[in-house]
Amino acid sequence: VAWLQAMLDFEAALARASANVGLVEDAQAQDVAASCRAELFDLDQIGRSAAAEATPVIAVVARLRDLVPPEARNAVHLGATSQDALDTAATLVARRALQPLLSQVSAVAEALAELARAYRDAPQVGRTLLQHAAVTTFGAACAARLVAVDEAVAALCAVREERLAVQLGGPVGTLGHAGTAGPRLVAELARELELAEPVVPWHTTRGRMVELSAALGLLCGELAAIAQDVALLSSTDIGEVSVAAPGGSSSMPHKRNPAPAVLALACAHRVPALVATMLAAMPQELQRSAGRWQAEWGTLTDVLSLAGGVAYHCRRAVEGLRVDDERMAANVARLLAVTGTDVVDVGSAGAFVDRALDAHTRRAR
Amino acid sequence: VAWLQAMLDFEAALARASANVGLVEDAQAQDVAASCRAELFDLDQIGRSAAAEATPVIAVVARLRDLVPPEARNAVHLGATSQDALDTAATLVARRALQPLLSQVSAVAEALAELARAYRDAPQVGRTLLQHAAVTTFGAACAARLVAVDEAVAALCAVREERLAVQLGGPVGTLGHAGTAGPRLVAELARELELAEPVVPWHTTRGRMVELSAALGLLCGELAAIAQDVALLSSTDIGEVSVAAPGGSSSMPHKRNPAPAVLALACAHRVPALVATMLAAMPQELQRSAGRWQAEWGTLTDVLSLAGGVAYHCRRAVEGLRVDDERMAANVARLLAVTGTDVVDVGSAGAFVDRALDAHTRRAR
Amino acid sequence: VAWLQAMLDFEAALARASANVGLVEDAQAQDVAASCRAELFDLDQIGRSAAAEATPVIAVVARLRDLVPPEARNAVHLGATSQDALDTAATLVARRALQPLLSQVSAVAEALAELARAYRDAPQVGRTLLQHAAVTTFGAACAARLVAVDEAVAALCAVREERLAVQLGGPVGTLGHAGTAGPRLVAELARELELAEPVVPWHTTRGRMVELSAALGLLCGELAAIAQDVALLSSTDIGEVSVAAPGGSSSMPHKRNPAPAVLALACAHRVPALVATMLAAMPQELQRSAGRWQAEWGTLTDVLSLAGGVAYHCRRAVEGLRVDDERMAANVARLLAVTGTDVVDVGSAGAFVDRALDAHTRRAR
Amino acid sequence: VAWLQAMLDFEAALARASANVGLVEDAQAQDVAASCRAELFDLDQIGRSAAAEATPVIAVVARLRDLVPPEARNAVHLGATSQDALDTAATLVARRALQPLLSQVSAVAEALAELARAYRDAPQVGRTLLQHAAVTTFGAACAARLVAVDEAVAALCAVREERLAVQLGGPVGTLGHAGTAGPRLVAELARELELAEPVVPWHTTRGRMVELSAALGLLCGELAAIAQDVALLSSTDIGEVSVAAPGGSSSMPHKRNPAPAVLALACAHRVPALVATMLAAMPQELQRSAGRWQAEWGTLTDVLSLAGGVAYHCRRAVEGLRVDDERMAANVARLLAVTGTDVVDVGSAGAFVDRALDAHTRRAR
Repeated sequence: VAWLQAMLDFEAALARASANVGLVEDAQAQDVAASCRAELFDLDQIGRSAAAEATPVIAVVARLRDLVPPEARNAVHLGATSQDALDTAATLVARRALQPLLSQVSAVAEALAELARAYRDAPQVGRTLLQHAAVTTFGAACAARLVAVDEAVAALCAVREERLAVQLGGPVGTLGHAGTAGPRLVAELARELELAEPVVPWHTTRGRMVELSAALGLLCGELAAIAQDVALLSSTDIGEVSVAAPGGSSSMPHKRNPAPAVLALACAHRVPALVATMLAAMPQELQRSAGRWQAEWGTLTDVLSLAGGVAYHCRRAVEGLRVDDERMAANVARLLAVTGTDVVDVGSAGAFVDRALDAHTRRAR
Repeated sequence: VAWLQAMLDFEAALARASANVGLVEDAQAQDVAASCRAELFDLDQIGRSAAAEATPVIAVVARLRDLVPPEARNAVHLGATSQDALDTAATLVARRALQPLLSQVSAVAEALAELARAYRDAPQVGRTLLQHAAVTTFGAACAARLVAVDEAVAALCAVREERLAVQLGGPVGTLGHAGTAGPRLVAELARELELAEPVVPWHTTRGRMVELSAALGLLCGELAAIAQDVALLSSTDIGEVSVAAPGGSSSMPHKRNPAPAVLALACAHRVPALVATMLAAMPQELQRSAGRWQAEWGTLTDVLSLAGGVAYHCRRAVEGLRVDDERMAANVARLLAVTGTDVVDVGSAGAFVDRALDAHTRRAR
Repeated sequence: VAWLQAMLDFEAALARASANVGLVEDAQAQDVAASCRAELFDLDQIGRSAAAEATPVIAVVARLRDLVPPEARNAVHLGATSQDALDTAATLVARRALQPLLSQVSAVAEALAELARAYRDAPQVGRTLLQHAAVTTFGAACAARLVAVDEAVAALCAVREERLAVQLGGPVGTLGHAGTAGPRLVAELARELELAEPVVPWHTTRGRMVELSAALGLLCGELAAIAQDVALLSSTDIGEVSVAAPGGSSSMPHKRNPAPAVLALACAHRVPALVATMLAAMPQELQRSAGRWQAEWGTLTDVLSLAGGVAYHCRRAVEGLRVDDERMAANVARLLAVTGTDVVDVGSAGAFVDRALDAHTRRAR
Repeated sequence: VAWLQAMLDFEAALARASANVGLVEDAQAQDVAASCRAELFDLDQIGRSAAAEATPVIAVVARLRDLVPPEARNAVHLGATSQDALDTAATLVARRALQPLLSQVSAVAEALAELARAYRDAPQVGRTLLQHAAVTTFGAACAARLVAVDEAVAALCAVREERLAVQLGGPVGTLGHAGTAGPRLVAELARELELAEPVVPWHTTRGRMVELSAALGLLCGELAAIAQDVALLSSTDIGEVSVAAPGGSSSMPHKRNPAPAVLALACAHRVPALVATMLAAMPQELQRSAGRWQAEWGTLTDVLSLAGGVAYHCRRAVEGLRVDDERMAANVARLLAVTGTDVVDVGSAGAFVDRALDAHTRRAR
């Protein structure tokens, strides 16, 4: 349904943009736009047609032509090709999906910022290759993760602002019906949908979709690192933290599984390969690809949905995280005993926490 | 629903197997088995619990305990852990999904065999690096694809017979409740479900799932090669074949898109990365993995469903394939003119076709 | 050797930066820097030690301590950990490798710009799903690829400027030896090496390396699309272009293989999975990862080297590309005959070419 | 050099096979075979030619023609195409590389078998999702890994025996020069090289190479799971095992890093994506692929070499593994205290160990 409505948003905006540059009448455009409502369409029937034609657009456009008054019929999908509708729809779907995702991630960042602040000077064993190495602070560990999340969010937002663009080129990218007014039409469409305006149609140059996927993959990777730290630190053998709402076990009632961390890791584990699929789909042939473009649809949808899962579960893994101060201190004492010192020296840990929090505050503004 | 019923099939079989080795009463086992029907369970509620606990099994088992008479309650899920239920269920789901898939692939193979037979001696331009190279026969090209499909099917069937096994180990793989009768209990469960009997529980040794995925990936790759040849040979510039039911275009009525070939390629393009996800999920920790195992569920489901898509669309791409004999001959004539000969020498092409058809017939038996 | 010298550049810069913040004497720093020359080190011996210790840094530092005068010994590798040296070295190696790469890509872009200009209004069949669709111009096709390359280069350059940073945190990221002067020391090191200054150490937050890999993957994808168009358009059946220096065949002297396009595709085909490996390596544990970090070294090296291969071969595929004007026109005539028109309408093709060339010129400045 | 010699082994065997079926004289075949020695060839020159022609075979064959007496010249590379030489050479290289690899893996299996036997009844905490769950035995854990390695080795050996085949089809797979004697010639070549005989040439049906890669990926995954268990169990916080030769640290002399486990994980982490690259390379076009086939060479080489690395380091991780019995027992006591019991019940752990060792012994025979 989200995809269908996005396709219809494209068709409505295309009609209005066509009116703006004088290719159709305003009244026609209004007629078209008025019929672009998902509830007037039969999803099952569109699905069947999509399997036969290798694109759902044919059925959508046919139904839309039936819905509008006869005099507006030629204003429907004017000069556009299936890919124009689908690429723009995918872009709209992605932009809409990013909002709840970014809000979950923002909650993750706030939780990390709080932990960094609260445990700025709390000594913790630093573990390298899982071996006790030297003392750091729990705040410094949280601060490093906070910086990473903030930077990944910044990269994703940059892609959202600059790279999510409308697609409009017609069958072979020339907008043949528009004479030389093609670029103006594209600009109008971009304005209508508040998306970026591409230099030229990008039917077989897929950098935009790939950059979006890669930025999501990057974010998932940083969030997964957090989830993994939570899983490790809440292991029985370390026991320094535990999640707010641990999961149970079908056979062992005493267990307190770090369920949200595990689910965040499970979702995140699936993302890198999907990004590879998007990258591998890039060499698209001539004016429209026979297979690689069509492989993008489900892949991008999966990336968005898994990234949403990673963010949701990661938030549940860090919000309300319980820190076992005693255990943390006991582990530090054990390390100090091994290294034969009784001085805890955490160097610039606090200074790094402050830098991370400063940077976080500056970004938030 | 398929997953839920498969989990319940596990629970029913476990109860019966437990009765067979004397751990529960026969009557108890019958009570449990009688309640293992998917329609008695609320999928939504199970889904919510799955998100909280990182496993759907807890909710399924709780509901099952409610459904059975009090005296059978302790026979439910006896000694098993969530992963026992989920791994066995995944195995059952996979085995069931393979049947329609293999039947589609069998139709692909028959179509190729027919083409190989019919065009055994029909000269066609052999194209290497997309350049006209030397003359082969269209039958030889089809025969090579036929052998590849047959061999990929054989590899997949071998995995199905030998590697799809029950999982039963209890919380940490020891079947603690069964004393030393564990292996006998596993054997009974395997017999009940007609699955292979593993040497030991395989909670964190995931070769079985990976071999299944890889065999599906292999098959998809061979089918995709066929789809790609169809797409290329049906390009306007080559024009030697066309699919039985070409797709249309939302803007160009004269086009005859090789839609099934394109959709087969689109599905197939997504599979290799999923196989990589399964392989990357292999290093699972100690007695149960915190994230990698859980990442398998959706991935394996996607591989099965995409493989089904590849097979379905590939069948539509080759069944009823129309061959343009004139065009094929004209292209051969053009190549002969370039190489300055008028003798068509297709060497052992026919002999290879015969070998392929022989091997196909032998396998079919 | 490139890696070794980069590690030594790190050690020299670290010594100078340490002097700048007063942790060591200037004379000591000069002694250290003077010994940081690759030819004073035995690569084989370092390799053997690397296999035993899982890091080459131990052997490098030991040798460096032997080389400097006794009074400078404590200024060697002061407060640093292996990962500081290796991450900074990897960053330096990457930055150095980008220069020749970007110069090859720049030649690709110039060749495309020239073709776009020269063939701005030259009608060519537009092919969608490999079917003749409608008429575009060869210039428009080249312009679309040009924009894609320019945008991918811009993304890569942004990563180079903003994300290639020094690494310095000491064993657990606290720079324990530097008191609270850690951030100042990091800033000095960044200044010495002309790399970015990170907010905090990034030992287990790997976004920087991943963004670099992804940007390279993106560029390879756009270049591969060009190579694939060249391979298709130079196929015997289309025959509209041919590469300047085609390859031969070991058995068919008449063939003119589009060898550079093929090799560009071969290199590019290997990159997406490597980017996935980098993404999958992101969830690095606690203060230093046990395996994932070490997996980055070879992967990043391969990405850089394959990207170099893609760019080199792609340049050879497009520079001096020969266009067969007659064949191009004949194919257009054939399409017009099918669609029953004799008017060639290329719509805004020229306008889009102009926009692409404008954007290219603006970027070049 | 290994590749070059393997190519020459192909050329020598092809000459002999051609003589066996009467296509050339015995004396000619002997002349050709006598010149097929790698030291007579200039690797650098072949490399340069390979970059220009997209195949090294042209230069190798040219040099070989120069080396043999004039009367044997027409017996060189008779009827073969570059891909025949390269695919057969790749197969030979792979088969040779498997021998040392399998011998390392065999040592891993022996070490696991010994541990399983020695610790058959030694209680150890079973950890699920890294939480203490219930008691198992260390022997049972080792036995599960042993079974997995044995099964992965069996799968790899099956591929080696049945799927490593000669390639011989000539330019377009028809062996045009051999009349209808093609199949006999292929059989002779297979006999000469002791490789399997394919039903038909497999120039663009790549299942054989993919099955080999997937079987290696499977093995690496099982070995990586072992390495990861070693890394976790030797973590300071668990401390139940330590590797025989731990690595040091450039900054923390007290650390005992599980270096071989870490390096095994690092190598293994890179393999899944390479298997995906092989799978993605499968849809090869018509009679020879323009890019995908060429992408296999480096990928397969990398898979073989990384698998070698995984096996080598994994062996060093498990051979001589030290088990800290006291620590293991103390952790068990801690778990018993939490679950409020003082009875250690390891159920069928011992029975499973016995089954694993039996299966291992049976396979070894």
